[in-house]
Amino acid sequence: MHKWMQIAYNEALSGMNRNDGGPFGAVIVKDGKIIATAHNTVLKSSDPTAHAEVNAIRKASEILGTFDLSGCILYTTCMPCPMCLGAIFWARIQNVYYGANENDAARGGFDDKAFYEMLQNRESALALQQIDHKENAELFTIWNQKSDRKMY
Amino acid sequence: MHKWMQIAYNEALSGMNRNDGGPFGAVIVKDGKIIATAHNTVLKSSDPTAHAEVNAIRKASEILGTFDLSGCILYTTCMPCPMCLGAIFWARIQNVYYGANENDAARGGFDDKAFYEMLQNRESALALQQIDHKENAELFTIWNQKSDRKMY
Repeated sequence: MHKWMQIAYNEALSGMNRNDGGPFGAVIVKDGKIIATAHNTVLKSSDPTAHAEVNAIRKASEILGTFDLSGCILYTTCMPCPMCLGAIFWARIQNVYYGANENDAARGGFDDKAFYEMLQNRESALALQQIDHKENAELFTIWNQKSDRKMY
Repeated sequence: MHKWMQIAYNEALSGMNRNDGGPFGAVIVKDGKIIATAHNTVLKSSDPTAHAEVNAIRKASEILGTFDLSGCILYTTCMPCPMCLGAIFWARIQNVYYGANENDAARGGFDDKAFYEMLQNRESALALQQIDHKENAELFTIWNQKSDRKMY
């Protein structure tokens, strides 16, 4: 196994054995060095967002002191779910190596594949209703007028 | 404005004014009572995952002591981005009211709309490469054989 993927795999295995969460592990590497390793802790932390990739991104951001992880490479034992892929986009990570895929995850009872399909058709996937559009749209006008705004 | 959306709006405004992050706020309500309110804290925490909805979901999960927020309603000042919508799916929140849309966010310089498009074609959006499939797929076999596994 690839040396960084082996570490992600070991994270997945130890997290599952400790009942921290499902069998998912991730490693973030930059300039040939590990910045962060993490596994899924949804069960341990009762936090539905505590996937391996999100945990690794949060750790790496804290360690590097920035929300911008461009130049980092992510190794993850399974294809990132829509939430994690979104987190990868926001973190500006451009290179991702994954092991298992959504079909493997589905075999373990995980909804990654179903959620990718739901995302294609948001409006029918859940009750998603727009209200108070005008006032909320104006928040971006206020934002654009803010002299000290910092983009991310 | 709708009373819960007004609270989400106030969160967005105060978070922006304090330079915690962009103009985004969210409120989670259950049985007619507020469980959690939050705003975007990407800048304050240097955490690219610290969107209003993710922050609200993490708070609500901690308060309710569970990763399962079914029965909760989310009010958010802007259409959730792919990461946040994924978090909403995992949290099993079925009802979402949003204010502004992706076009409004794009006007403020935010990539929500671009990321929805990138998600439609993951393979071309970033360097996403599969390695060590067999070993990682076996993690789900080990998971399925685990007698005390708990699904989420």
